Amino acid sequence: MTQPQGFFYPRSATGQASLLPAPPWFYAGDLLTIEFRTDPARVAELLPAPLTLAPEDPGAVALIWADWQSCGGTKAELLDPVRAQYKECFAVVRCAFEGRVYSRCIYIWVDKDFALLRGIHQGYPKKFGSIHMTRPHPFAPAPQVAAGGSFGATLAANDRRLAETVITLTEPAERNGFVNGHPMAHHRWLPAIDGKGDVHAELIESGGAKFEGAQPWRARIDHFKLFDSPTEELTRLEVRELIGAYYRQIGVVWNGGKSLVPAIGR
Amino acid sequence: MTQPQGFFYPRSATGQASLLPAPPWFYAGDLLTIEFRTDPARVAELLPAPLTLAPEDPGAVALIWADWQSCGGTKAELLDPVRAQYKECFAVVRCAFEGRVYSRCIYIWVDKDFALLRGIHQGYPKKFGSIHMTRPHPFAPAPQVAAGGSFGATLAANDRRLAETVITLTEPAERNGFVNGHPMAHHRWLPAIDGKGDVHAELIESGGAKFEGAQPWRARIDHFKLFDSPTEELTRLEVRELIGAYYRQIGVVWNGGKSLVPAIGR
Amino acid sequence: MTQPQGFFYPRSATGQASLLPAPPWFYAGDLLTIEFRTDPARVAELLPAPLTLAPEDPGAVALIWADWQSCGGTKAELLDPVRAQYKECFAVVRCAFEGRVYSRCIYIWVDKDFALLRGIHQGYPKKFGSIHMTRPHPFAPAPQVAAGGSFGATLAANDRRLAETVITLTEPAERNGFVNGHPMAHHRWLPAIDGKGDVHAELIESGGAKFEGAQPWRARIDHFKLFDSPTEELTRLEVRELIGAYYRQIGVVWNGGKSLVPAIGR
Amino acid sequence: MTQPQGFFYPRSATGQASLLPAPPWFYAGDLLTIEFRTDPARVAELLPAPLTLAPEDPGAVALIWADWQSCGGTKAELLDPVRAQYKECFAVVRCAFEGRVYSRCIYIWVDKDFALLRGIHQGYPKKFGSIHMTRPHPFAPAPQVAAGGSFGATLAANDRRLAETVITLTEPAERNGFVNGHPMAHHRWLPAIDGKGDVHAELIESGGAKFEGAQPWRARIDHFKLFDSPTEELTRLEVRELIGAYYRQIGVVWNGGKSLVPAIGR
Repeated sequence: MTQPQGFFYPRSATGQASLLPAPPWFYAGDLLTIEFRTDPARVAELLPAPLTLAPEDPGAVALIWADWQSCGGTKAELLDPVRAQYKECFAVVRCAFEGRVYSRCIYIWVDKDFALLRGIHQGYPKKFGSIHMTRPHPFAPAPQVAAGGSFGATLAANDRRLAETVITLTEPAERNGFVNGHPMAHHRWLPAIDGKGDVHAELIESGGAKFEGAQPWRARIDHFKLFDSPTEELTRLEVRELIGAYYRQIGVVWNGGKSLVPAIGR
Repeated sequence: MTQPQGFFYPRSATGQASLLPAPPWFYAGDLLTIEFRTDPARVAELLPAPLTLAPEDPGAVALIWADWQSCGGTKAELLDPVRAQYKECFAVVRCAFEGRVYSRCIYIWVDKDFALLRGIHQGYPKKFGSIHMTRPHPFAPAPQVAAGGSFGATLAANDRRLAETVITLTEPAERNGFVNGHPMAHHRWLPAIDGKGDVHAELIESGGAKFEGAQPWRARIDHFKLFDSPTEELTRLEVRELIGAYYRQIGVVWNGGKSLVPAIGR
Repeated sequence: MTQPQGFFYPRSATGQASLLPAPPWFYAGDLLTIEFRTDPARVAELLPAPLTLAPEDPGAVALIWADWQSCGGTKAELLDPVRAQYKECFAVVRCAFEGRVYSRCIYIWVDKDFALLRGIHQGYPKKFGSIHMTRPHPFAPAPQVAAGGSFGATLAANDRRLAETVITLTEPAERNGFVNGHPMAHHRWLPAIDGKGDVHAELIESGGAKFEGAQPWRARIDHFKLFDSPTEELTRLEVRELIGAYYRQIGVVWNGGKSLVPAIGR
Repeated sequence: MTQPQGFFYPRSATGQASLLPAPPWFYAGDLLTIEFRTDPARVAELLPAPLTLAPEDPGAVALIWADWQSCGGTKAELLDPVRAQYKECFAVVRCAFEGRVYSRCIYIWVDKDFALLRGIHQGYPKKFGSIHMTRPHPFAPAPQVAAGGSFGATLAANDRRLAETVITLTEPAERNGFVNGHPMAHHRWLPAIDGKGDVHAELIESGGAKFEGAQPWRARIDHFKLFDSPTEELTRLEVRELIGAYYRQIGVVWNGGKSLVPAIGR
């Protein structure tokens, strides 16, 4: 008997209906990053054991907006772009595990279903949001990725604005910030169907299998605000000090990862 | 060290940010059901082992549109209705396991993130779609749930229409169809992070913990059409014979299920 | 030579492409109304000459949420419900013209294009918004239109929440508030293409050609809040005193109106 | 008495609530153009008197997808990009008036309210649609505006796909097609509130007040399809012969126009 085909839901006769092709997944897009310091206790409370705070600058947080086009190996989604384009905004902290520093996404909002389901696979805690970013373009009134270019970015969910920023590029930078620069350490959880804890809880590591990037740019932060919401805890990450802002265009391939702690559940 | 709180993603300091409260989950809504027969081979190809075709009428399929308001135990979502209201359209078949007949959702489209993540927990293979249903209302030009009331329902995904129907209620019925009337047998899958098969594959059973329903109505099928799409296989369920149509208003509580085959993966 | 057909844009060979059929237009839906008093000067500043403040209770404002199904004479939209269903939230004040009291919509947000274009015809100053309302339903956890039923309603535009309320029905009422109870006095404006003022500016009167309504309900206001936004002036209507809240299900036919001041422009 | 402020709806105390600032309006974006020939009779039936068919190549049609960022004079919308970004797809033909050739938009779908209301001012017959276009980007898997770059574009409305194309850039071109290259001749209509014809019907001319453009590219048409819909007449423009495809990045300023026939109504 032939089994239904497909990398993830839904599995079907031919696999055509599957929301996700099997990795590798290919991405091209723009990243707008704000880095700031919060109380390290606010980071610690988001790290499940066995993860601990990063030894240096443990209160550093990156809030990153991304405007992506992505696809599987056939690249078919790119030419039916409703299936390729999505935007996301995500908060990243650093943590330590067995003496190594990792990045970890603690909150993330996306605007397409395929991105949300990829998150279940990758351990990104995805919800839906409405994300907007000014886009660079060769002609005015749009900005260019160059000194003086101003970019706005906003995040909303459930019809409430959650975060907004405006930055102005100032000079080339050596890197695109430091908080999101490590391999990701994420939990893949599946609550038990009988409601008693998790039936699967796995700590995994993943990162880009291939990476290209344009010159990163440093930016002045003209405006940055987080808003309260009954459905979020973003404002618990109180901004004690702004670190910096960055803008970069990149291309990435993601092709899976590995288990760090294969079975820590139930 | 306190662990992050929350039933499912994201887990956070207080649990407020979690997309889902822990079950039980409460639902009130309307169901518009079309039942038809397809080639049983088309159903069989969607059933992973150890599931087999139902012994009687194995090619029966139900395509069901639902317009829901749902919430957790605090009912807070009901009064911030962007968080409570969603619509879905789902295809159900029957199958057999260890001598018992189950219903099984093979495709489902929803329009909110909380509904999609609930699907990951419950084994519903959820994608996003755009779903619309005529709503009953006391005044013309809207229909009432009564003889002569006409209701339309449509489904689209990725900017393509996938299914549409128009029905007219004719008489009270004993039940709301038969295909979706059994406990659900679903697979909960999690692909391995290294890409080698599934790290979790569990067959679970679930059903309503509590159920209320108004009088079901039988309906004439004025129009019913499935459309091809490069992202779907719905039209493989070729309509050989229409069985009937139904409309019913219901209230349901869902409170988890149990494992039928706890570990059939990798 | 045959002229293109259609009541309004676009006009085409057969009229099938027209966004709007010619009136009459038929509506069935639910209204959730909050009435409050603001500074009458805040109302006066929204009334163009020759309109003046209503002689009694001139600072009264109604903010009304409505969940509609609407259609033209063929009723075809009802059965392709993506074309029939829309929600709106609108602010209404009263004004006087030639000794008569009129209602006047000063702000309105809708979520469908056909509703926006109807507004251009009717003089409603429509923008897009995201509007949600708890819906009555026979089964828990949804409320019923009965004492104790609680309903929430929210409005957002441009990813910012603008207004929200929660009400609980207390008792039958004689009427559904008083602010929106008069014929509407609206301006139909068309700015000149050369940028010099308006090429058309007409004061019109319109109202329902036919009306049916269920028992209105009075409600307790559990929560009511207006929010600032850079794109709105709703919070200029500062809430000095809450008057009351109402809920009613209605059916309406709209079939045009008449000019009060046919040409007051340029 | 001070009059309410604002270029168009809604007019308010300060003008902040107005959906549109007064022109000039500034745009930067990408255009993907498909030109084809249809039966000239299909064009003629869309031209109200006194417009007539263009003397040369009267059956030429352009279907153009555009991905815009736009703003008013303060440029504030650019940095709150939910208010600046929109996409559209529009069909253009040519026509003649008093011995001069004009372009004329016969159908257009946009995805934001401010774009729809601008259309009422400019005489564009705007409806809402869902529009997607592959975007150029420096990194794979995205295409670049260069030989070999492949771009897809799709249009849907009311949950039905209406048009889709895939093109591959082949070589620099002298111009970006010819159908949309003339001043626009549009009708500004306002139906009478009593339902008897139009109370305003004006033929206007407008065009860009300032224009910048990158090198236009010619493209191979890999795929182009129009779909039937009960709400559209796009497929009446039967494709007899494909003329060509183009891609260009541009910057435009729009600052009003002039009346050609100020009063041809009722």
